[in-house]
Amino acid sequence: MVSFDCDYNRGAHPEILKKLIDTNFEVQPGYGFDEYTASAKEKIKKACGGGDIEVEFLTGGTQTNAVVISTMLKDYQGVIAADSGHVSVHESGAIEYSGHKVLSIPGHDGKLQAADVRAWVDNFYGDATYEHMVIPGMVYISQPTELGTLYSKAEIEALTEICRERDMLLYIDGARLGYGLMSDESDMTLEDIARMADVFYIGGTKVGALCGEAVVFTGGCRPAHFMTSVKKRGALLAKGRLLGAQFDALFTDDLYFKISRHAIKMSEQIKEIIREKGWEIYLLTPTNQQFVLFDEKQMEEIGSKVGFDRWAPYDETRTIVRFAGSWSTTQEDIEALRKV
Amino acid sequence: MVSFDCDYNRGAHPEILKKLIDTNFEVQPGYGFDEYTASAKEKIKKACGGGDIEVEFLTGGTQTNAVVISTMLKDYQGVIAADSGHVSVHESGAIEYSGHKVLSIPGHDGKLQAADVRAWVDNFYGDATYEHMVIPGMVYISQPTELGTLYSKAEIEALTEICRERDMLLYIDGARLGYGLMSDESDMTLEDIARMADVFYIGGTKVGALCGEAVVFTGGCRPAHFMTSVKKRGALLAKGRLLGAQFDALFTDDLYFKISRHAIKMSEQIKEIIREKGWEIYLLTPTNQQFVLFDEKQMEEIGSKVGFDRWAPYDETRTIVRFAGSWSTTQEDIEALRKV
Amino acid sequence: MVSFDCDYNRGAHPEILKKLIDTNFEVQPGYGFDEYTASAKEKIKKACGGGDIEVEFLTGGTQTNAVVISTMLKDYQGVIAADSGHVSVHESGAIEYSGHKVLSIPGHDGKLQAADVRAWVDNFYGDATYEHMVIPGMVYISQPTELGTLYSKAEIEALTEICRERDMLLYIDGARLGYGLMSDESDMTLEDIARMADVFYIGGTKVGALCGEAVVFTGGCRPAHFMTSVKKRGALLAKGRLLGAQFDALFTDDLYFKISRHAIKMSEQIKEIIREKGWEIYLLTPTNQQFVLFDEKQMEEIGSKVGFDRWAPYDETRTIVRFAGSWSTTQEDIEALRKV
Amino acid sequence: MVSFDCDYNRGAHPEILKKLIDTNFEVQPGYGFDEYTASAKEKIKKACGGGDIEVEFLTGGTQTNAVVISTMLKDYQGVIAADSGHVSVHESGAIEYSGHKVLSIPGHDGKLQAADVRAWVDNFYGDATYEHMVIPGMVYISQPTELGTLYSKAEIEALTEICRERDMLLYIDGARLGYGLMSDESDMTLEDIARMADVFYIGGTKVGALCGEAVVFTGGCRPAHFMTSVKKRGALLAKGRLLGAQFDALFTDDLYFKISRHAIKMSEQIKEIIREKGWEIYLLTPTNQQFVLFDEKQMEEIGSKVGFDRWAPYDETRTIVRFAGSWSTTQEDIEALRKV
Repeated sequence: MVSFDCDYNRGAHPEILKKLIDTNFEVQPGYGFDEYTASAKEKIKKACGGGDIEVEFLTGGTQTNAVVISTMLKDYQGVIAADSGHVSVHESGAIEYSGHKVLSIPGHDGKLQAADVRAWVDNFYGDATYEHMVIPGMVYISQPTELGTLYSKAEIEALTEICRERDMLLYIDGARLGYGLMSDESDMTLEDIARMADVFYIGGTKVGALCGEAVVFTGGCRPAHFMTSVKKRGALLAKGRLLGAQFDALFTDDLYFKISRHAIKMSEQIKEIIREKGWEIYLLTPTNQQFVLFDEKQMEEIGSKVGFDRWAPYDETRTIVRFAGSWSTTQEDIEALRKV
Repeated sequence: MVSFDCDYNRGAHPEILKKLIDTNFEVQPGYGFDEYTASAKEKIKKACGGGDIEVEFLTGGTQTNAVVISTMLKDYQGVIAADSGHVSVHESGAIEYSGHKVLSIPGHDGKLQAADVRAWVDNFYGDATYEHMVIPGMVYISQPTELGTLYSKAEIEALTEICRERDMLLYIDGARLGYGLMSDESDMTLEDIARMADVFYIGGTKVGALCGEAVVFTGGCRPAHFMTSVKKRGALLAKGRLLGAQFDALFTDDLYFKISRHAIKMSEQIKEIIREKGWEIYLLTPTNQQFVLFDEKQMEEIGSKVGFDRWAPYDETRTIVRFAGSWSTTQEDIEALRKV
Repeated sequence: MVSFDCDYNRGAHPEILKKLIDTNFEVQPGYGFDEYTASAKEKIKKACGGGDIEVEFLTGGTQTNAVVISTMLKDYQGVIAADSGHVSVHESGAIEYSGHKVLSIPGHDGKLQAADVRAWVDNFYGDATYEHMVIPGMVYISQPTELGTLYSKAEIEALTEICRERDMLLYIDGARLGYGLMSDESDMTLEDIARMADVFYIGGTKVGALCGEAVVFTGGCRPAHFMTSVKKRGALLAKGRLLGAQFDALFTDDLYFKISRHAIKMSEQIKEIIREKGWEIYLLTPTNQQFVLFDEKQMEEIGSKVGFDRWAPYDETRTIVRFAGSWSTTQEDIEALRKV
Repeated sequence: MVSFDCDYNRGAHPEILKKLIDTNFEVQPGYGFDEYTASAKEKIKKACGGGDIEVEFLTGGTQTNAVVISTMLKDYQGVIAADSGHVSVHESGAIEYSGHKVLSIPGHDGKLQAADVRAWVDNFYGDATYEHMVIPGMVYISQPTELGTLYSKAEIEALTEICRERDMLLYIDGARLGYGLMSDESDMTLEDIARMADVFYIGGTKVGALCGEAVVFTGGCRPAHFMTSVKKRGALLAKGRLLGAQFDALFTDDLYFKISRHAIKMSEQIKEIIREKGWEIYLLTPTNQQFVLFDEKQMEEIGSKVGFDRWAPYDETRTIVRFAGSWSTTQEDIEALRKV
């Protein structure tokens, strides 16, 4: 059955798989010292505009968030995030496992507003007993957000500004960064991201790779002995080539951007179909995730024809349902959806 | 200057100090194996109604919360607390330091409503991906709350009920438990607390001791090798007698209850004075903390005559100010307040 | 250049790669709910003799050790290991990161002797202050060891016995388990391992997979909500199929055992060559790792012809050097070595 | 019965108790902002030779070690200690609880030799894979050691030298520092300690206080937001005056040194008596702890007359027994020992 459940239910993009096959029997050093890792790092650095950029590869999103946040925060610091942020709710307490608190602030359709962050931080430092509290050391946002919504460049710049004023790092979770950058509504490039964030990651798992995320540190902020800290968290792959080769493929001939753009095109058609069919809209977004409300009958009837994700209960009778486009969505998939 | 800032700005109640002096030169084993610790445990157990009760002493409130919560939660669990709960905001991330998340729910004047907990937990288990989230394993409340408000017996019983239904422990932070139990509005006894909670602590630091909290485990729920876990957290005193002797004094001739009752009587007079003077009320409580709103002029004028605590900014012109009665507040202190 | 550096410097065994390719475009649920994961679990369970066995997949060895040890130890417990054990020295403190101490005991060529463990534990419990120490809750061994040496069945059974007597779990790190089981000197089967250990893992990364280790829990000892604990440690793959498909291939038609046996045959020839050439022997083992001592001239001359691993400095003039056979070593590689 | 079991089985020195009594009813701010804490810090700073010195108070020794080590090590670092060091064996894993490994090196009568540390560190950095290991960031020693032995100034200076060469901090656990400095064999002063160590603590619990240790940071190495980190570890006392007043008394009129000197004089007499009686010597030290070997008959007979500590089993028939002199040992106690 055709599936729009999520963007990680197929294997790898053929070009990525090809790279793994082509390089399979080469002897390469372990732990990320292979030539594909080196090549991928160079390509990503270049795509980020070069300069004072360092790139490291990790395996998955939660792992990346935990490694980045826990190695960059100081002992007494926590990370500010939207209450719907992945680190706030969907990581089984991975940040807390590292001994750091997630300081949740209400988001707006998944987005953290600079004004809210500013007010929160002002209020924090206005409290005479703030040394009895967790001191904010980082702001975490997802671009696009967990709900598929998109920050504008001005919105992120405003966050960068408050971060620099208050000595906080800005960290962008880019699990689906490609789908954000290639959105029709995006007004920013990867270079902009690299300029605005202190650290961010370019998601591979949800954008065509079998696994893997590329962490980008800007301005020389990569923690010292990062490899040791990664190993300490059980996150160092012996065959680092698995990550290096995949990202080398993703950043050859703009593959990452091309397949992200493809997903956006598919997703735009999904939105059209949703509107055509008159399905009740919960949230349509400019990226690859669209949310509608289905009643039980729709759940059953439509669910018998195509796959979608039961996102959350909405009320007594309706469920929030997600349709995701992805790098692997085909025009045939779209036509199947049109016919339900 | 007379001070109503807080309930921990004087040393110890004279009877406690006397006990320390009287026993000072006795040879006693270390690490809580002294006879005063044994005696204090027996007395507290009796005061709790006996039965399957075990008592352990720790030094301070945050330490107690961190030790209790982290030794009783399972790896995958977190603790539900009101957003104003001490563990949520004022422990510098001590719970997170232990690797566990505090699951904050909006409180009502500092109190967690059973209905809100039930809704939250129902919603949690209704989510198909709840295994990607922190599983609730404990409910934390403070009696009285950080705002001085008081749960009724029915309110706590309702929390006990949802906890038992959903396999969660109920933990009561009793930093100021005496001031709660001795309140005119209290409808419960220490025995009730021991029956409703799985684990709770009887606060000493804020009720006449130099330091020390008595943790009470009911129903055999004390973690195995608790002493080792306490030591592991740097919380085992070599001279355990310091805690044992103080609690032995506090639970001799009902001292704990008597001095708590005294604080309540003082606090009731503070409320009277607040009303007489027409100060703008922010929150008057049935326990030992009262909150008013002062403008800058009041802050200065009244602040030059008596001490109070600047709790938090309220708006552009007013500040929330706390007046606390305590075991050490005297009738002379009250008269000084009446004269400001 | 032909390489004998290690057993993880090539990609995946062709059968494994084929499985990934064949299943690449299938829609499969994430997080290990795919059909290949289910199939692989079933096959491994069967290979372990069935019964009360549960299987879970993780990505790498250090991660597996950290996840298993930290979810199975109680708060007050630590893990006993040989001083040369991977958890003792080569995990950048991953076990300590989880809050648990590694209790190192001198090994004998990498092996922990039951008599030493017994003496250590007897001594431990003979200490009146043992509650101020870390209580042993698990014994960790590697089969084969980090040095390529092999435990006999009787040796492991003796460890099982002391573990059961003293309420400790026996955990076997099987990063190279295949190379151990297929050794000419092995007197045990996978079923024996499953009977003797409480928990162990079957290593994939070093035995033909791109990544992946299969943890086997026996006797119902899998921790509750294991998936949540895995996620909490950043170790849950979104595309769990990557692990499932690989292990499904490895446990189809005994591939795991066949390729392990192949490595042993290659390694036996390496030993022959070492002896023929009269290289100074440091340690020859019945598994896939052989250690010789090279002086600087040998390092340079031989190192210019074939790859090997500089294991450790030995003395002023000599270096311990490792030659590893693996699933990917070919007869041509062996001939190249013979010719150096 | 007269007791030589340990140096923490009586309450507080009368001068300390007097200070607590005298200041008991004064209103003082909490959390270490009281005037006695300020005064004590000033006095200790002066005793350390002034300059770039900062002092903080904590409650007990294990807590102090855990707080200091975990706030000063970087994520990827561990602490080197003698295998008999308190942090290595008797803290129930408190250092590991903070996520850091204790790197144990064999000691000599409890002392860590600079040459051994140098060899260990050279070997460490000589290993090509050291980034897979825990990087040494601190050296921990106890002065005097857990066995009562004493480092010479030259020995500590040699440790300071290797620490500065290898970018490691030198931390001295001074749980019994007074007994070390006042030993007849001591060739150093508190100022020397402050010059040689980066951080150390002056033990109160075992030198006349009810509880409390004074941490001394030199050269501006106190971690930022130290109070928040202390609170995070449950180690911040609400009534900080309890620690401040005690140390204020201890550092008034050289009380700390006088009572330490007294303990040494008592201990020298204990040594004389041990020799006179011909008891089998295990280890006599220049500080306040003396160790002899008793057979079962001696254990019983002498044990019926005076108290001593059963340190550890020695062999089938003999036990290592400790006699400790302390600030509270009286000449009458000594005479009682002479008469057994």
